[in-house]
Amino acid sequence: MSQPAEIKIVLVGAGNVATHLGSALQEKGFSIIQVYSHTLTSAGILGNKLQTKFTHTIQDIDRDADLYLFSLKDSVLPEIIEQFFPVDGLLVHTSGTLSWNVFERRGAGRFGVLYPLQTFSKTRKVAFDTLPVFIEANNPKDEDRLETIALTLSNRVVRLSSDRRKQLHLAAVFACNFTNHLYAIAAEILEKQDLPWNVLLPLIQETAAKVKQLHPKEAQTGPAVRYDQDVMNSHLESLKGDPDKQELYRMISRSIQRFENNV
Amino acid sequence: MSQPAEIKIVLVGAGNVATHLGSALQEKGFSIIQVYSHTLTSAGILGNKLQTKFTHTIQDIDRDADLYLFSLKDSVLPEIIEQFFPVDGLLVHTSGTLSWNVFERRGAGRFGVLYPLQTFSKTRKVAFDTLPVFIEANNPKDEDRLETIALTLSNRVVRLSSDRRKQLHLAAVFACNFTNHLYAIAAEILEKQDLPWNVLLPLIQETAAKVKQLHPKEAQTGPAVRYDQDVMNSHLESLKGDPDKQELYRMISRSIQRFENNV
Repeated sequence: MSQPAEIKIVLVGAGNVATHLGSALQEKGFSIIQVYSHTLTSAGILGNKLQTKFTHTIQDIDRDADLYLFSLKDSVLPEIIEQFFPVDGLLVHTSGTLSWNVFERRGAGRFGVLYPLQTFSKTRKVAFDTLPVFIEANNPKDEDRLETIALTLSNRVVRLSSDRRKQLHLAAVFACNFTNHLYAIAAEILEKQDLPWNVLLPLIQETAAKVKQLHPKEAQTGPAVRYDQDVMNSHLESLKGDPDKQELYRMISRSIQRFENNV
Repeated sequence: MSQPAEIKIVLVGAGNVATHLGSALQEKGFSIIQVYSHTLTSAGILGNKLQTKFTHTIQDIDRDADLYLFSLKDSVLPEIIEQFFPVDGLLVHTSGTLSWNVFERRGAGRFGVLYPLQTFSKTRKVAFDTLPVFIEANNPKDEDRLETIALTLSNRVVRLSSDRRKQLHLAAVFACNFTNHLYAIAAEILEKQDLPWNVLLPLIQETAAKVKQLHPKEAQTGPAVRYDQDVMNSHLESLKGDPDKQELYRMISRSIQRFENNV
């Protein structure tokens, strides 16, 4: 394959994924030649960060790139692709949910997916090297190319079909987005007691660390798995002013018990 | 205060909390003089581990200990206390939910609570030094004693009333037990696809690490907080064979959006 510096990449999108992925690729020597975002401000921020050109006009996107990396909200992606022009380069999106064939309606000849399984926030640097990256492309040669590119970032690159990637993304929503929301609920409960929410941090870290060693089903603790109805009743009583949290408590506890019975 | 070695402790209970707390106290030099459990096997396992006496008969419990540490299921604790005999020592339980006055009905004169905020599994050693420990006692002198003991284990010892401890425990159920269950759901989704569940580990670790830096409300990502209805519909469609998970998905997503609107 060509050297990274010879591979010209356009970032289509300037959000968290584009920012982290673009920076990581640039660090590995790839040429990020342009950033597009539909708002000039966002395009400018990432363009300046990567010291490269930027635009908020689709028609001004460079037509000679080797790789167009689309990191956009799933609801926006099809519409942007709709407005895209024919290019020789490889069109790749980073969505966990959308199929690769979202590019087909544009009559694109070469397309694929590169999905890094991680949660990206503006203010945190992410270690790409241990992070699983899932790829697919509509022809074997481009799949090889994508694999080579992904392997410069991560040592765990897996070829995965769109259908299975969608399931993977669903699992990630439970393990990451929903988990974070439970942290937020816990924080809210403590803050109502004027307790600093960060007393939970050692518990949160240990809960996450534990599953490096034990399967989550084996790691389960707490009143629901012990069928400790007294504790559960007492918690439900505490939540009686907040029917939404109460229902969530009930439902997750039941789900824990169902899992336990199926082990 | 007396030196740790002069403080004689009886462990009432031989489960995960008793095992970890007992081992940690012994490492700090305290004298664990006996282990009680209602099954001889459990008493024996922990007794042997700590190289100390053990019994499964309440009446055989040593009456001269300075501290009786009750680490039992909340539903069992009152019943065991009921059968307990009057002692001069300090009676302390480690429950997050039960009030300190559970000891009063036994006419106990000196009692309190020592609640370590952590999840304990048989097979993992826990670092006590950074783990918050919450204490209370029914008289100031014993509260000072408990604080001194707790400070040998941890540098974060907080005096907390039973009412507030109960809220803390409820928060811990969300942040730990419920979180772990979400990991288990995610694992199940992947295993149905013949994908190794541990591809989620970097994501799980980053989700937990992120809140060391950002408040969970700021750290929230995913389709619900982005109001990405296409992705949510696609996930709900994937879960259509599993109405329980589908309902959980819907409910947590709604809860994320409610939080977002209240920020």
